[in-house]
Amino acid sequence: MSKWVYSFGRNRSEGAAGMKALLGGKGANLAEMAALGLPVPPGFTITTEVCAFYYRHAKSYPPELRAQVAEALRAVEAEVGARFGDPARPLLVSVRSGAPVSMPGMMDTVLNLGLNDRTVEGLAAASDDRRFAFDSYRRFIQMYGDVVLGIDHYLFEQRLDEIKREHGVRFDNELGARALADLVASYKELVRRELGRDFPQDPEEQLWGAIGAVFGSWMNQRAQTYRKLHNIAADMGTAVTVQAMVFGNMGEDCATGVAFTRNPSTGERAYYGEYLVNAQGEDVVAGIRTPQPLTRAMAEASGGDPEASMEARLPHSFAELVAVFDRLERHYRDMQDIEFTVQRGRLYVLQTRTGKRTAAAALKIAVDMAEEGLIDRDRALLRIDPMALDQLLHPTLDPKAERRVIAKGLPASPGAVSGKVVMSAEEAERLAGQGEAVVLVRIETSPDDIHGMHAARGILTSRGGMTSHAAVVARGMGKPCVCGAGDLLISYEEQAFTAGGVRVRAGEVITIDGSTGEVMLGAVKTVDPQLSGDFATLMGWADAVRRLKVRTNAETPLDARTAVRFGCEGIGLCRTEHMFFQEDRIVAMREMILAADADGRRKALAKILPMQRADFVALFEIMGARPVTIRLLDPPLHEFLPHSESEIGEVAAAAGVEPRVVRRRLKELEEANPMLGLRGCRLGIVYPEIYEMQVQAIVEAALEVEARTGAAVVPEIMVPLVGSARELELVGERLRAVAERVMAERGRRIDYLVGTMIELPRAALRAGEIARHAAFFSFGTNDLTQMTLGLSRDDSGKFLDAYLEAGIFATDPFRSLDIDGVGELVRLACERGRDTRPDLKLGICGEHGGDPASIAFCEEVGLDYVSCSPYRVPIARLAAAQAVLRRRGARA
Amino acid sequence: MSKWVYSFGRNRSEGAAGMKALLGGKGANLAEMAALGLPVPPGFTITTEVCAFYYRHAKSYPPELRAQVAEALRAVEAEVGARFGDPARPLLVSVRSGAPVSMPGMMDTVLNLGLNDRTVEGLAAASDDRRFAFDSYRRFIQMYGDVVLGIDHYLFEQRLDEIKREHGVRFDNELGARALADLVASYKELVRRELGRDFPQDPEEQLWGAIGAVFGSWMNQRAQTYRKLHNIAADMGTAVTVQAMVFGNMGEDCATGVAFTRNPSTGERAYYGEYLVNAQGEDVVAGIRTPQPLTRAMAEASGGDPEASMEARLPHSFAELVAVFDRLERHYRDMQDIEFTVQRGRLYVLQTRTGKRTAAAALKIAVDMAEEGLIDRDRALLRIDPMALDQLLHPTLDPKAERRVIAKGLPASPGAVSGKVVMSAEEAERLAGQGEAVVLVRIETSPDDIHGMHAARGILTSRGGMTSHAAVVARGMGKPCVCGAGDLLISYEEQAFTAGGVRVRAGEVITIDGSTGEVMLGAVKTVDPQLSGDFATLMGWADAVRRLKVRTNAETPLDARTAVRFGCEGIGLCRTEHMFFQEDRIVAMREMILAADADGRRKALAKILPMQRADFVALFEIMGARPVTIRLLDPPLHEFLPHSESEIGEVAAAAGVEPRVVRRRLKELEEANPMLGLRGCRLGIVYPEIYEMQVQAIVEAALEVEARTGAAVVPEIMVPLVGSARELELVGERLRAVAERVMAERGRRIDYLVGTMIELPRAALRAGEIARHAAFFSFGTNDLTQMTLGLSRDDSGKFLDAYLEAGIFATDPFRSLDIDGVGELVRLACERGRDTRPDLKLGICGEHGGDPASIAFCEEVGLDYVSCSPYRVPIARLAAAQAVLRRRGARA
Repeated sequence: MSKWVYSFGRNRSEGAAGMKALLGGKGANLAEMAALGLPVPPGFTITTEVCAFYYRHAKSYPPELRAQVAEALRAVEAEVGARFGDPARPLLVSVRSGAPVSMPGMMDTVLNLGLNDRTVEGLAAASDDRRFAFDSYRRFIQMYGDVVLGIDHYLFEQRLDEIKREHGVRFDNELGARALADLVASYKELVRRELGRDFPQDPEEQLWGAIGAVFGSWMNQRAQTYRKLHNIAADMGTAVTVQAMVFGNMGEDCATGVAFTRNPSTGERAYYGEYLVNAQGEDVVAGIRTPQPLTRAMAEASGGDPEASMEARLPHSFAELVAVFDRLERHYRDMQDIEFTVQRGRLYVLQTRTGKRTAAAALKIAVDMAEEGLIDRDRALLRIDPMALDQLLHPTLDPKAERRVIAKGLPASPGAVSGKVVMSAEEAERLAGQGEAVVLVRIETSPDDIHGMHAARGILTSRGGMTSHAAVVARGMGKPCVCGAGDLLISYEEQAFTAGGVRVRAGEVITIDGSTGEVMLGAVKTVDPQLSGDFATLMGWADAVRRLKVRTNAETPLDARTAVRFGCEGIGLCRTEHMFFQEDRIVAMREMILAADADGRRKALAKILPMQRADFVALFEIMGARPVTIRLLDPPLHEFLPHSESEIGEVAAAAGVEPRVVRRRLKELEEANPMLGLRGCRLGIVYPEIYEMQVQAIVEAALEVEARTGAAVVPEIMVPLVGSARELELVGERLRAVAERVMAERGRRIDYLVGTMIELPRAALRAGEIARHAAFFSFGTNDLTQMTLGLSRDDSGKFLDAYLEAGIFATDPFRSLDIDGVGELVRLACERGRDTRPDLKLGICGEHGGDPASIAFCEEVGLDYVSCSPYRVPIARLAAAQAVLRRRGARA
Repeated sequence: MSKWVYSFGRNRSEGAAGMKALLGGKGANLAEMAALGLPVPPGFTITTEVCAFYYRHAKSYPPELRAQVAEALRAVEAEVGARFGDPARPLLVSVRSGAPVSMPGMMDTVLNLGLNDRTVEGLAAASDDRRFAFDSYRRFIQMYGDVVLGIDHYLFEQRLDEIKREHGVRFDNELGARALADLVASYKELVRRELGRDFPQDPEEQLWGAIGAVFGSWMNQRAQTYRKLHNIAADMGTAVTVQAMVFGNMGEDCATGVAFTRNPSTGERAYYGEYLVNAQGEDVVAGIRTPQPLTRAMAEASGGDPEASMEARLPHSFAELVAVFDRLERHYRDMQDIEFTVQRGRLYVLQTRTGKRTAAAALKIAVDMAEEGLIDRDRALLRIDPMALDQLLHPTLDPKAERRVIAKGLPASPGAVSGKVVMSAEEAERLAGQGEAVVLVRIETSPDDIHGMHAARGILTSRGGMTSHAAVVARGMGKPCVCGAGDLLISYEEQAFTAGGVRVRAGEVITIDGSTGEVMLGAVKTVDPQLSGDFATLMGWADAVRRLKVRTNAETPLDARTAVRFGCEGIGLCRTEHMFFQEDRIVAMREMILAADADGRRKALAKILPMQRADFVALFEIMGARPVTIRLLDPPLHEFLPHSESEIGEVAAAAGVEPRVVRRRLKELEEANPMLGLRGCRLGIVYPEIYEMQVQAIVEAALEVEARTGAAVVPEIMVPLVGSARELELVGERLRAVAERVMAERGRRIDYLVGTMIELPRAALRAGEIARHAAFFSFGTNDLTQMTLGLSRDDSGKFLDAYLEAGIFATDPFRSLDIDGVGELVRLACERGRDTRPDLKLGICGEHGGDPASIAFCEEVGLDYVSCSPYRVPIARLAAAQAVLRRRGARA
C-alpha cells in the first residue's frame, strides 16, 4: 500500500529535512525537528505525490488517503489529548501548503481549523477565555471563507467595520467576546448569502475543504506564472501539512516570537529576536503592539528596559529556547530563523529555516562558523553570494540618516554618494577641478561624457537600462550610478530637473544610492566600507581554491590601482579608445578623422603617440609583471566627432577647415547601425596607420618600463571584431612589422602576444582557422550577445522587461551569459581554437566576466581567466572558487 | 627518367585536352588538335612540373630538361624542314606561357624567336620579302627586349617614332625594308645601352631566356595578387609552349583570321568570323586594316561585298577551315573560338578554345546542340550561366544607338530605361500619374520612397552598394537601378545634379542601364526582351531536373503576376510592411504608433484591417493553390514615422495632437542600432494587437478567396526575428487563438501553417527547440548574415571594396552566401530542426535565394525551396537544376 501521509510528533517522526521533494520545505523541517526531540506541535504531512495523483485523476484522491489521514489525526489527538470536533476538548489544527521550493501565489495557511458553533464553546471553557475563543473562531471563518470558499476578503472587512462601528470601537483588539460573537454570526450570514449554504460545521468537511484548496492553488494562475518565470516544473507538486494549533495568546504565561541564532544584520554571535507576551504570531508582524527584545543585551544596546526582555520575563522558556537555538544551529550548521510560541509556560517551535542576512553578516557568519569548526572552508565559501560582496566595497547610506526620496531608478552601480547637481560633462570637470563633489545628471550619457563621468562622484540618468552606457561605464569606474530614472524630467536649457513634485536646480545637492536606485534631496550621511579581516580571510580561502585567474577591465591608473588592491592578476581589457576622449587628445583625434589622406592621418597620430605611450607606461608601471591586454581602437570614428553646431565650429576652427567640411565628414561617417559598421579591425584594415601608431606606443612603453623597473612587461595586443582568419593574418602581419621595427630601432626586445577578441558569431564558428594567427582569444561577450541575439544593448531596455515578464529571458542576457545560445558559440570556439593551438590562452572580457553564473560557465568550458571591472574583482575571485567547488560536488 | 617535355605535331602528339594541369590550357589544346590530325604547326610543351622544380631548386632546371628540349626541337625541325639557327632555312618559334587556368599578369608571348642578324637574311630569301623579314626581326627584338630583358616598352616606342620621323612616314606599315633595318640597328643599340651587352644572337640563348622569363613571371607581383584574389594555388605552376612560327603575311596566298563555329552574338548556327589577306594575327586586332567577313552570308547581311569574303577569295582554305570547324565542334561539343593562319595556301590552326557568347547565344546554342544530339539536356543546362539569364528578361540598350555616358555607378538591377529626372518620391508619383516616364534620382532611398520607386521606371542613387535599399527594392520590383554613382552631385534644393561636367535639371531626360551601371544623357533607344521558345524549352528541362521548389518574394499583385509568369511555385516572402507605406495606410499606421495605449492602437488597426485583408485577397487570387508565406510586421515602428518638420506637422494634424507629441514619440522610438532593436516578433510581444490584426486579415482573406474560387488557399504565417522557442510559442498561441476565433465566427476552416524565419544566430543554434512550435523555417539570410558577420548591409559599402581587395571576402556576403560562416549556422539549424520535426518545411527567403552559388548550397543542405525576387525566378530554376546535376556528377 502506498504511503501518502507522514506523521511527526513526540513519539514518532516519519520524515526528515532531506525529504523536501516529498514533504515540502515546511513539512520536512517540522519532521526533522520532531525527530531531534524538539518541542514541535504534532501533525502530519500529505505528500506531494498526492498532489500529482490529484491532477492525474481528475482532482480525486488515492483511495487509501482518507484512512491514512484519519490514522495520523488520531495520533495527533492522542499526543495533544484532545479530539477533532470534540465539543469539550476540541483539537484545532492549522493547514498549510508546502512546496519543495518556496513559492508565492499559492494558498498559504488556514489556522484554527476544527472550530464550529459547538467547539468554540469548548475552547472558551478550556482556555477560560471566551473572547479568545470567539476571536479565534471569527479569524478562522474569515481565513477559510477567503482562501477555501473563495469569498472576497473585502466582504469580511466590511462586516468587521460594521461591527466595530456598532460597538463604537476603533481597533480589532478592543472588541469584546460579545461583539466577536456578533461578528461570527455576521460572517456566517455572509457565507450563507454568498454561497447559498451554511459555513461548514463539520470539522472533517473543513479539513478536506482546506486540503482541496491547497492542491487547487497549485494550478492557479499566479502560481503557474511564478513557476514559468522561475523554471519550476509543474509536476513537482505541493504537500499539505496539518498541525495541532498552539496559542501564545492564552494569558500572561503565553508568548510568541521570532528569533535568529545570530545577529542577521552584523553576523555577531549573539541571540537575536523579538517576542510579545500573550499574543499570536501575526501580532508580532502587524505592529499594533511593539515587540520586545529577546535578550537583556539587545535591550541594553537599544536603550530599552532589560527587564522587558524574554530573558528576564520568561527565563525558563528563554532557557529552553537557547537550547533549541544551539541544537538547531549545530544540526543545520547555519544561522537559523525560528518562529516559536509559548503556550502556558510551554515552548513550541513552529518553524525553522536558514535565516536571511546582510552581506556583512553573511561574511562574518561564514568565516566565524568555519573557524568554530561548525563548517569547513569550502562550505564557508559556498555560503556567500558573490554579488552581495559588492555591498561591502562601496560607501552605503547611514541606516540612521533621514532621507527624502524624490525618484527611483535602476540600481546600476552600487554605492551611495552626495554632490551638487551638474548637467554637463564640462561643468562636472570644472567644478570637480575646484574641489566640489558633483553628481552628473544627464538624460543619457555618451562617450563624449567620459571625462565628466570621471570627474563626478556619481551619475544619474533618466534614460537607459542596467547596461546603458552610463551604467556600464560607471560600474567600470566603480562609481555609484542610478540610471533610467524615468520620473526625472530633465531640462538642459533650464539647468534643472523635476522629480516627485520637486524642482532641483543645478548646484543643489542630491544623494543617490546606486545599490537601491533611490534619488534623495540634500546630503544623506553615508558610511565608508570596512573591509574587515573576515573579508581578507575569505578571499584568501577563495584564492586557494580557484583555478580561473581574475583580471580587470581598466584603462586609467586609478582603475588599475583599485583593481590591484582588490586582487586582480592582470588587465584583461584596456580599451584604448577611452584614452582618446581626454581634452588634449580628442583634438588630435578629430584632426586625424578629418584628414584627407593617410599622410594627414599620420601627422595627427604623431601628436597622439607620446600621450598614448605615456598611458601605457603608467599602466605597465602599476601592473608590473602582470599581463596587460590592450585592445586596439574599436569604436566607429564618428563617436569621436562633435554633433552640436557650436562644437562643429570649434573643431573646424582647430582643424583649420570650414565647418561644412566637418559637417560633410560627419555625414560621410554616419551609420544606420554603427554596431555593425566600420569599427574594430575594419578600421585597422581601412586606416592601417591608426593601429601602427598604437602598436608603436605599446612596444615603446613596454621597452621603457622594462628598462626602468626590470619587470618583464608582456603586453598582449588584442585585435577587435575579427570575423575571419584572413583579417587577423593581415592586421597581425602589419602589427608585428611595426613591433619589430621599434625593437630594432631600440636594439632591445620584449615578449608580446598578438591575439583577438571573439565577439562575432562568425569568429566563434571559424575559431579553428583564426587560432592559427592568435596567441589568445578573449571572448567579447557583450558584442557576441548583441550579434547572436540580434539585440542592441542600448535599445533593448524598451522591451527587456516585457521579455523577462513573459519568461523569454530568465535574466538580462547582458548581465548573465545566455549559456544556451551565446554559450554554445563560446564552447565551440574554445574547442576549435584549442584543436588548432593547444596552448591558446582563453579569457573573457565582457560584462559577464564579473557575473557569478557566467563565471561558473567559464570554469566549465576551461577558460584561463575572466576579466571584469575593478569592483567586480573580489566577486569574481569568490565566484571562481565556488565554481570549482560546485563542479567538484557535482562530480562526487 | 622523368618526362618534362611533351611534343605535338603531325607525326606524334604526346598530350591531350585532358592534361591541362600538366600542359596548361594552350599546350593541352594544341596537343589535342594535333592528335585529331588537324593542321597545327608542330611544337612542344615544357610541363608545369618544371615550373615547380624551378622554384623548389633555386630557379634551376631538371638536369634532363636540356636534352629533352633539344630532342623535341629536332622533331619540330624535321616536320617543318628548317633548322633552328640555320641561316639558310631558319626555324622560328613562338614561346608562350600557359597556366592550367587563364591567368593575366604573366608573360604572354614572344614571337619570331630564332631570328638574328644572319637568320633574318635567310628569312628574307626564303620569303622573298626583305621588308617582311626585317619587320619580323624588329618585332622580335622589341617583344623580347620588353618581356625577357626587361627593357621599358616605352623606349622601343621612342626609337620607332624617331625612325618614322626620319623616314617621313606616319604609320608603322609605311616603313620599308631599309627603314626597318635601320630600326633593328637602333633597337640593338638601345639594348646595348640599357643592358651593357648585345642583344643575344644565339637562338639557343634566346630560347632559354624566354623559357626562364615565363617561369619567372609566374611569381611576379601581378600574378601573385591575381592568384590570391582568385584563390589559385601558387604550386599549380605554368607550362611553356614552344611552337613553330607560321606567317599569314608572306603574300596574297596568305591570310590570318579569327573565327567562331557559330554566331557568338545570336547563337545562330552559321560560321562567323573575320580575316585579312597577307596579314599577321595582331593586324586583325589592331584595326589598321579593316578585316573582311569570313563568309558570303556574313558579307551580305552587313551590306558588304561577298567577293571579299574568305569563302570567295580563298575557297580552298575556307573549305579546309569549315572541315576544321565541324571537326572541332563535334570533338569539343561546344562552340569554338579559333585562330588560324593561311601560309602560302596552307591552313594552320593556332588555337582553339570554347568561345565566349552573349546570354542569348548561350541559350540558343545550348538548346540547339541538345536538339542536334551533340550534347544531352543535362549538359545543355550546365552550359548556361544562370545569372546571364537576367539579361534576357529586361529591355536592353539598342547596341546601335548612340549614347553619351555622364556617370557610372553600380549595376544594381538590370535593364535599360529612359525617363524624366525626378528627385522625390512624391514628384515621381505625381508625374507618373500623368503618364510620364520618370527616373527617380536620390542620394539614397528609404522605405518612405517605396511609392515613388513603384511609380518610377528606374532608380538612380549616388550612395549605397549593391545591397543598399534602392538596389534591393529595385531588384525586387524588377526595375532598372544604378546605385552608388558617386560622381553624381545631387542637390535637392536646386532640383538638379551634376555629373561628368554636365548639369541635369529635374524634368530633363536621362537613360540608365542597370546592367552596366551607365548613366546617359537624353533618351537612348532600348530593345524589348524576346523570351524566345529556346528560353521556355530550357526552363522546361530545368524544371524536370531540379528538386528545389522556387518561390518568389512579392507583396504587390504586379510582382506576384510577374513571378507567376516566370514560373514561381509560391510566395516565399510577402513583407507585409511594404503594404503599410501606401498613402491611405500610412496615416492609420502612424495613428497606431502614436496611440497612447492598446485601445488606441486597436482603433487605428481596425482602419488598416480591411485594406490589409484586400491585399491578401488579391495575392491569394493570383497565387491560387500555391503556398503564400506572409511575414508579420518586421521593421521598427520608427520607419513609418516622418522625419521632416513639415511632415511631423501633417501627422500631428491628422492625429489631432500637438507636433511636440509626435516629436516626443519619435524621440522615444529612436534607436542607436535599429537592426538590433524593437522589431520583428518583439513588436508582436510588446504590441500583440498588431499581429492579431494581421492574422485576422490573413484568415479572413483566405476564407473569402477559398469560398469564391474553390482553390485550397494555404497561408503560411511567418513570425520574424525569433531568437528562442518561448517567443514563438507565445506569439504562436496568440495567433492560433485569433485564427480559431475568426474561423469559428465564419463557421468554416482553412488550413494554415505557423512558422518562423531563422535570421538570428541564436535561432539557428536553438532550432531544435524552436521547431517544436514551427511548421516551417525560412532562412532570412540577409539578417543572418548581418548578425553572424556583425556587418550592416547599409553601412558595409564603405569598406566592402577594401575587404574584397584584401581577399577577406571572396564575394560580397550579401550577394552570395558566406558558406563557411553563415552556412554552418544554416546547416546546423536544418539538422536540429529536422531532428525535432522530420517533416519541417525548410526554405530560404534572403537575397541569396536568387544567387546560383547559394542555391547550390541550399540543394546540398536539403532545403525544400528557395524564394527570390520575381526576376530571379528563372535564374533560380536553372541554378537549382544545375545544383542537382553537379551533385550527381560529383557523386559519380
